[in-house]
Amino acid sequence: MAFRRPQPPYYAVIITSTLTDQDPDGYAAMSERMAELGKRQPGYLGRESQTGADGRELTVLYYQDAESITAWKQHPEHLEAQRLGRERWYADYHIEVAKVERLYGFERE
Amino acid sequence: MAFRRPQPPYYAVIITSTLTDQDPDGYAAMSERMAELGKRQPGYLGRESQTGADGRELTVLYYQDAESITAWKQHPEHLEAQRLGRERWYADYHIEVAKVERLYGFERE
Repeated sequence: MAFRRPQPPYYAVIITSTLTDQDPDGYAAMSERMAELGKRQPGYLGRESQTGADGRELTVLYYQDAESITAWKQHPEHLEAQRLGRERWYADYHIEVAKVERLYGFERE
Repeated sequence: MAFRRPQPPYYAVIITSTLTDQDPDGYAAMSERMAELGKRQPGYLGRESQTGADGRELTVLYYQDAESITAWKQHPEHLEAQRLGRERWYADYHIEVAKVERLYGFERE
């Protein structure tokens, strides 16, 4: 899921979560819907995501600026997804909004 | 691998990588050694890491400040590990240094 990163500064939203065992199909459907909708928001750059064998998810969403993150956070459909997440799907989460100041890349020839 | 986060600001180093198929045992040993050594550096707070079925790794290392990151980047044993990484183990990587400005947490009661 690599994508072409711009030159810094840009923003990263780091999401670390543990799921409950409630309603996994509902979660999977909402997760897919939010990924699709989120991709179409202004300022969205890309994402990296991995799920461990222990059920913990680590996702980083990238945005051009902090305003794009605030706008997506307040999107009505996303607000409803957040509410359901706290009600049903998440045992815990941390969400961190971070400004990327430096980027180092390497690619084998 | 959750840990107690401080109040922002603090720093995150986001590492996204793809491994080659060269010398996986050497990589595993070095990776463990660097995690152990890295943990003991001043300013280190904790880490989150997941490896996907596709062999891509997503790791976030947390530090109190940017100076701690620079010091660890220049640690002699870590410099040698970085050199070997580019020579043998990594097909590609992105490393982003980011300042965490906001933190939102949730834990089910």
